[in-house]
Amino acid sequence: GFARIDHHRTLRKGFPEVVYCEGKTPQQAAEILIRLAETTDASVMGTRSGVEVYHLVAQMRPEFQYDEQARMVYLKRQASPPVGHVVVLAAGTSDLPVAREAVLTLELMGACTTLIVDVGVAGLHRLLEHLDTIYAARVLVVVAGMEGALASVVGGLVDRPVVAVPTSVGYGSHFGGLAPLLSMLNACASGIGTVNIDNGFGAGYLAALINQLGEST
Amino acid sequence: GFARIDHHRTLRKGFPEVVYCEGKTPQQAAEILIRLAETTDASVMGTRSGVEVYHLVAQMRPEFQYDEQARMVYLKRQASPPVGHVVVLAAGTSDLPVAREAVLTLELMGACTTLIVDVGVAGLHRLLEHLDTIYAARVLVVVAGMEGALASVVGGLVDRPVVAVPTSVGYGSHFGGLAPLLSMLNACASGIGTVNIDNGFGAGYLAALINQLGEST
Amino acid sequence: GFARIDHHRTLRKGFPEVVYCEGKTPQQAAEILIRLAETTDASVMGTRSGVEVYHLVAQMRPEFQYDEQARMVYLKRQASPPVGHVVVLAAGTSDLPVAREAVLTLELMGACTTLIVDVGVAGLHRLLEHLDTIYAARVLVVVAGMEGALASVVGGLVDRPVVAVPTSVGYGSHFGGLAPLLSMLNACASGIGTVNIDNGFGAGYLAALINQLGEST
Amino acid sequence: GFARIDHHRTLRKGFPEVVYCEGKTPQQAAEILIRLAETTDASVMGTRSGVEVYHLVAQMRPEFQYDEQARMVYLKRQASPPVGHVVVLAAGTSDLPVAREAVLTLELMGACTTLIVDVGVAGLHRLLEHLDTIYAARVLVVVAGMEGALASVVGGLVDRPVVAVPTSVGYGSHFGGLAPLLSMLNACASGIGTVNIDNGFGAGYLAALINQLGEST
Amino acid sequence: GFARIDHHRTLRKGFPEVVYCEGKTPQQAAEILIRLAETTDASVMGTRSGVEVYHLVAQMRPEFQYDEQARMVYLKRQASPPVGHVVVLAAGTSDLPVAREAVLTLELMGACTTLIVDVGVAGLHRLLEHLDTIYAARVLVVVAGMEGALASVVGGLVDRPVVAVPTSVGYGSHFGGLAPLLSMLNACASGIGTVNIDNGFGAGYLAALINQLGEST
Amino acid sequence: GFARIDHHRTLRKGFPEVVYCEGKTPQQAAEILIRLAETTDASVMGTRSGVEVYHLVAQMRPEFQYDEQARMVYLKRQASPPVGHVVVLAAGTSDLPVAREAVLTLELMGACTTLIVDVGVAGLHRLLEHLDTIYAARVLVVVAGMEGALASVVGGLVDRPVVAVPTSVGYGSHFGGLAPLLSMLNACASGIGTVNIDNGFGAGYLAALINQLGEST
Amino acid sequence: GFARIDHHRTLRKGFPEVVYCEGKTPQQAAEILIRLAETTDASVMGTRSGVEVYHLVAQMRPEFQYDEQARMVYLKRQASPPVGHVVVLAAGTSDLPVAREAVLTLELMGACTTLIVDVGVAGLHRLLEHLDTIYAARVLVVVAGMEGALASVVGGLVDRPVVAVPTSVGYGSHFGGLAPLLSMLNACASGIGTVNIDNGFGAGYLAALINQLGEST
Amino acid sequence: GFARIDHHRTLRKGFPEVVYCEGKTPQQAAEILIRLAETTDASVMGTRSGVEVYHLVAQMRPEFQYDEQARMVYLKRQASPPVGHVVVLAAGTSDLPVAREAVLTLELMGACTTLIVDVGVAGLHRLLEHLDTIYAARVLVVVAGMEGALASVVGGLVDRPVVAVPTSVGYGSHFGGLAPLLSMLNACASGIGTVNIDNGFGAGYLAALINQLGEST
Ligand SMILES: Nc1ncnc2c1ncn2[C@@H]1O[C@H](COP(=O)(O)O)[C@@H](O)[C@H]1O
Ligand SMILES: Nc1ncnc2c1ncn2[C@@H]1O[C@H](COP(=O)(O)O)[C@@H](O)[C@H]1O
Ligand SMILES: Nc1ncnc2c1ncn2[C@@H]1O[C@H](COP(=O)(O)O)[C@@H](O)[C@H]1O
Ligand SMILES: Nc1ncnc2c1ncn2[C@@H]1O[C@H](COP(=O)(O)O)[C@@H](O)[C@H]1O
Ligand SMILES: [Mg+2]
Ligand SMILES: [Mg+2]
Ligand SMILES: [Mg+2]
Ligand SMILES: [Mg+2]
Ligand SMILES: [Mg+2]
Ligand SMILES: [Mg+2]
Ligand SMILES: [Mg+2]
Ligand SMILES: [Mg+2]
Repeated sequence: GFARIDHHRTLRKGFPEVVYCEGKTPQQAAEILIRLAETTDASVMGTRSGVEVYHLVAQMRPEFQYDEQARMVYLKRQASPPVGHVVVLAAGTSDLPVAREAVLTLELMGACTTLIVDVGVAGLHRLLEHLDTIYAARVLVVVAGMEGALASVVGGLVDRPVVAVPTSVGYGSHFGGLAPLLSMLNACASGIGTVNIDNGFGAGYLAALINQLGEST
Repeated sequence: GFARIDHHRTLRKGFPEVVYCEGKTPQQAAEILIRLAETTDASVMGTRSGVEVYHLVAQMRPEFQYDEQARMVYLKRQASPPVGHVVVLAAGTSDLPVAREAVLTLELMGACTTLIVDVGVAGLHRLLEHLDTIYAARVLVVVAGMEGALASVVGGLVDRPVVAVPTSVGYGSHFGGLAPLLSMLNACASGIGTVNIDNGFGAGYLAALINQLGEST
Repeated sequence: GFARIDHHRTLRKGFPEVVYCEGKTPQQAAEILIRLAETTDASVMGTRSGVEVYHLVAQMRPEFQYDEQARMVYLKRQASPPVGHVVVLAAGTSDLPVAREAVLTLELMGACTTLIVDVGVAGLHRLLEHLDTIYAARVLVVVAGMEGALASVVGGLVDRPVVAVPTSVGYGSHFGGLAPLLSMLNACASGIGTVNIDNGFGAGYLAALINQLGEST
Repeated sequence: GFARIDHHRTLRKGFPEVVYCEGKTPQQAAEILIRLAETTDASVMGTRSGVEVYHLVAQMRPEFQYDEQARMVYLKRQASPPVGHVVVLAAGTSDLPVAREAVLTLELMGACTTLIVDVGVAGLHRLLEHLDTIYAARVLVVVAGMEGALASVVGGLVDRPVVAVPTSVGYGSHFGGLAPLLSMLNACASGIGTVNIDNGFGAGYLAALINQLGEST
Repeated sequence: GFARIDHHRTLRKGFPEVVYCEGKTPQQAAEILIRLAETTDASVMGTRSGVEVYHLVAQMRPEFQYDEQARMVYLKRQASPPVGHVVVLAAGTSDLPVAREAVLTLELMGACTTLIVDVGVAGLHRLLEHLDTIYAARVLVVVAGMEGALASVVGGLVDRPVVAVPTSVGYGSHFGGLAPLLSMLNACASGIGTVNIDNGFGAGYLAALINQLGEST
Repeated sequence: GFARIDHHRTLRKGFPEVVYCEGKTPQQAAEILIRLAETTDASVMGTRSGVEVYHLVAQMRPEFQYDEQARMVYLKRQASPPVGHVVVLAAGTSDLPVAREAVLTLELMGACTTLIVDVGVAGLHRLLEHLDTIYAARVLVVVAGMEGALASVVGGLVDRPVVAVPTSVGYGSHFGGLAPLLSMLNACASGIGTVNIDNGFGAGYLAALINQLGEST
Repeated sequence: GFARIDHHRTLRKGFPEVVYCEGKTPQQAAEILIRLAETTDASVMGTRSGVEVYHLVAQMRPEFQYDEQARMVYLKRQASPPVGHVVVLAAGTSDLPVAREAVLTLELMGACTTLIVDVGVAGLHRLLEHLDTIYAARVLVVVAGMEGALASVVGGLVDRPVVAVPTSVGYGSHFGGLAPLLSMLNACASGIGTVNIDNGFGAGYLAALINQLGEST
Repeated sequence: GFARIDHHRTLRKGFPEVVYCEGKTPQQAAEILIRLAETTDASVMGTRSGVEVYHLVAQMRPEFQYDEQARMVYLKRQASPPVGHVVVLAAGTSDLPVAREAVLTLELMGACTTLIVDVGVAGLHRLLEHLDTIYAARVLVVVAGMEGALASVVGGLVDRPVVAVPTSVGYGSHFGGLAPLLSMLNACASGIGTVNIDNGFGAGYLAALINQLGEST
């Protein structure tokens, strides 16, 4: 076979394998997703997926859903109510697809999530109007393209962990997200962890793990 | 004056400003550290500091200490006992200075910390012998130079947040830490947040914030 | 003419020239392949080839074959049974096209080859289940995208040469394969030689030469 | 001779040639500075200069001065009182040498200049306390290392031109100033022009020209 | 909603928010533009916009216009006659789209603007024929691809601020505009501020702010 | 108008302006070419041109020709017989388009030109078979992709100037021609001048100028 | 302790751990080397080591040796006579330190080794004079700085595996070895595996493993 | 031995091997130079050489000379008077060491050479005053750091070959000469061949070969 599902993952990581659909044929991606749905009781996710994967999966398993903006195909099986509070901040409207991928991941992993959009530093008051929500967060996810300054500004305001996601929104010397990536890695505010460019999924995953720590176990 | 201390920071961030000593004259760095010691009740830290800064500070404030390996000058004022559990893993002996900077930061910020050294993936069994400690951690910090593969391997084993710190240990196409930085940002394991190359301080700071979330507040 | 076949190559290199089809018109590629088939008794290969090249070649020489996944057009003329043992490990399903190109090259060059797929380090036990096969190899080829950590882990387990192939599977700061390329070049395990990004052919070729050394000549 | 002074420059540019001392022997730099002092009535500046250049110049022309922080040797001949208002903002204490080079250039070119230090975005309130001064500026110069987010934040607050200077203050993935350079070039706020890394002189020069436009001519 | 218009911006910056249409769906871009037209009395601009955005906007608000070359959708509401004088110089015909974006921005922001095209340094006399116009400018915008030398040459001729815009016109080691970007940042002439590659809008915006300073306020 | 033809160029450079068609509309390119044909007696060339430009030009001026491989539209007006001897060497068949652009440029500029194809260093004897032709050259142009080693090898054999052209033929860590570009710039053989990646025109132009020097004037 | 020796390594890899001395204090490096000498019967190696490490080690264990050119401290314990045949080719005299590191590694790992120096492609006949030795090799190691073309040329001559080592010998656009690294990764000859810049040790190690395969086991 | 002199080179290249002294011990460099002086009748050159090499050589062969600025040790044996005319233009005083290396190489290779210094494009009239000399050249060498625009401007003025040498004079985003290197490779003027950063020797060598073509042979 072309794939070997990691059945131990739910045990080890508390969440099953997530399928990275890019570079797989729709048939391969669909088959892995369906096998996962059969061998786990948890939610199932396929990231960076075209709609054809969804169509193939839905034929067999109509309970799967597809989010076009996030390009995610998923099966939601969350039983218990969402816990904690993760605030996802998107600098601009163009960063929405990545922010949405983070939000969807957080929701599938059981985190109570709030999305705040279009609060880039070019108009700082827009961010400051949300201070109450921001201070109420257990973890924050900052999604920003262009120069990614939002991560520094948010990081300077809160005493909670910040997960920063650079996006490829920009052009020229942006170099496909390099500008905000370097910006976030070099942020003068402390308490920021960075994930790969456009990796909304990874940011959501990390934030969900951190958020979970706030629950008494 | 050449500096404006951010007195609000303890309120906002739960920890006072940390002085970045590089690019400051020893006199400037020392003066800021002493002013911080006077205006806050918390611990005080100066990172990337030569020993001359310490000598200047200690003349006025002998209770300051200096850690040569971590290149940190600091004043420890922690009252309450350390909480939680952060495990810091260093891939090689050469990564120790950065790992030590992380450990010291964690300790000054009140986290109970364990350091495990020389467990790079070239001899995987060395890592696997520590599985009990690893599984007991609330958060993990992985410090690695060369190709930084340790972050992926550890990330694949645990269901807790991992903070990855690439180091500049390597040569040639390592490009001063670029190799492990890219490696960590592109890790196939999920739940990893990355900080800047050699930024042991930043990793410790972020891990301390995450670790703190595990305390019931 | 637009090409000058290197007729000495079989003498010098033990294998005829291999046609790199990219940047050639299908007509040019097809003509060179047919000329090679006529002037050598060995197998003939065209890499990075679209299916149109195959269609043109097959009109004249129906014994040619085409592998869509590997994008290779070839004529298999191996007489003697395959020798030695080369194990090709692919980190993820998305790395299959490159792995397949390596496998096909190895087979055409007479190496006995085993392919193991989807054993990335995010789920290490999947790799460890194949330890017997891995230890039985004379040479190993590791094909990995993302951060390419599989090369280091495999390199740390065996006392045989490892050929590492970074793939372009990834996005953002992956920079088209740069991340795993740097990772493999800086691997902390010894005994690894790296080839170009996505160069499954080159890896197979090198591994075949090494594998051949194990035969008593 | 090793140099050809551009005597037309005062006519053309309203200010004489400025000597870039790096890569010149102290003797060469000193000789050019003295020749400039003789052939122009305006102020004379030598940038990126070690103190030895100053010592050589001062032997002949004791009215020259040296600023160690800015590494500038200069002869101040400003007759008319300074005009307009340029505000130079430095993100951190470590950015002071570059900020000082800008301030000195502005003063030598006749601009009324205010310097505000240590107002990085990690503690935003420090910046906001200076809003009155900031709004009173005709032009602003923002000097910042690390991730350079200060330029975006300032650019979002004012309706005046902003000249942004990235500095080499930082380490690791800062790549000697690349991080704040890209940040400033990609700033989401409009009205920002960027100069080379550490080029305090160039920023001061440009700001002085812009400031001058506010005078009725 | 997917967007939060920055209503304060006209107050703060003297000009309303400008919509960056890339990465937004045409529906999103159109809706924001129409909302801006309703909540401000100033001109409205959408940059990097396909014609579909215009079609959607024009259905509701036929007074909007579209400039295909500049890829800008806009609503011109300038009441007062244009002021000052900005000269925009384009090195080659291929740089026209970027130059046109600058010109349109300048006109919408009330600057009197002259465009001079095809005066690259390979034929210097073409530039020198326009010296009168060049010397009459309050500010200059230099738009150049290839090696971007025009910025240095113009910067060496005038005593006015120069805004330099590198373009992506070129190939090979041009690296999408990196060559002229570095060229402009390292220009040996003083008084030059650089904006992002292909950022005609940003250059026009900055030049308009500078030009405005020449008006007695 | 959108273009200003450099009528002095034939005087200054001995050859009229050459039109770079990329980034121009076919209409613009065609109009400039026709205007050039009218105002000069020399040959006329448009590089990097699609066939549509040719169609537009040929409607007005049927004596123009189009070379699809070289993507050049041109009008040949050479009266005098070709002089000297330029040898153009292409490493592989895939480098032919760039080599052909060089050859065509050389022929239009009056140089006697020989093209030798497919003599890459992987089969050195193919090159060595042409030693007589190579030694007879006044100037050599070496066109090579992949690692571009052919330039060094040729440069080590001859006492004549070598113009090296890296091509974008390759993939992965080739980075669009960066690999052979760096290779050629760092060649251990002396007497090599390098032009931009894929710049067959520029190589031909330079070689034509050098070749011309061999004529007694 | 600061280090955890990998005692299993001789079992797993057939050779004990090799100490990378850079980034370790001389005390740390020396202590690890002595511990290795005590716990293994095989040879012991410390790479990239200053002479102080040797002095510390030799005090305790005078049988250790130091090679200044290769910067290696080692204890030779080879019992059986060297086997096979590895030819190490160095392009220039300046590449000798890296070549020597490879040779020493090969000898300590039991390979019969020949070193050929100063056979760069600028004078190809120097290489061709050694054809007999070259054809007699089981494996070849090619060490080259500048543009690294030697790897391609050698790779084109032999039917044996080639291990290529780029060196940092060069300047300017060499970028510390990037030029020959890319050259070797993109070599048009097949059968080449590349190691990190200046990694003579890694090349020797890999070549020794390959060479060993030629022995009947 | 550590070196193999290429005795054929004078035959093949018309000039003996030139010793690159960097990375060689002074003893090695000196010995090679002396051996060359013994085995050839032509001039002998060692580039990038410290003065210690000269001292060692001069002990044995006092007729050698050393140029400190060019860092060249050489033995001049030119018999015939210099021929042709090469004009070397240096943009700034700081570019003199590289320009001097070019001039010395040209003189040792028998070219009649003129050096013009400090004619950068920031003061264009300085260049234009030398138009007569410039037009009289058979070949031109342009040496420039900063943005390297001088190459384009000179290239646009002459109908002779131009050899462009980028220098490392600059800072920040200059990236050690990358800025002028890219600038020269992308020059909009035709007829320019570029050599490596700071490679005055290489430029002189190439220009000497071109200049020689103007002599009737
Ligand atoms: N969008 C994504 N970005 C990064 N990693 C991902 C993404 N989606 C899934 N993954 C990870 O990639 C691995 C799947 O690889 P594969 O076996 O090729 O499907 C899983 O371990 C996931 O944790
Ligand atoms: N080693 C470090 N790496 C990154 N950031 C640091 C480091 N040390 C201190 N900082 C941050 O840098 C800022 C201090 O900048 P400054 O005002 O220049 O001292 C503080 O906000 C710290 O959070
Ligand atoms: N400064 C230099 N820059 C580039 N190449 C050089 C330089 N000096 C000498 N060379 C070349 O480097 C080769 C000598 O290398 P090596 O054998 O290491 O001395 C000769 O072929 C010279 O043509
Ligand atoms: N620190 C600096 N950064 C950038 N450019 C400078 C600097 N100082 C002087 N310059 C410019 O460099 C040119 C002088 O170059 P040079 O002839 O080499 O002294 C002058 O035109 C100045 O405008
Ligand atoms: Mg917005
Ligand atoms: Mg170790
Ligand atoms: Mg998988
Ligand atoms: Mg501060
Ligand atoms: Mg033109
Ligand atoms: Mg071929
Ligand atoms: Mg040599
Ligand atoms: Mg000068």
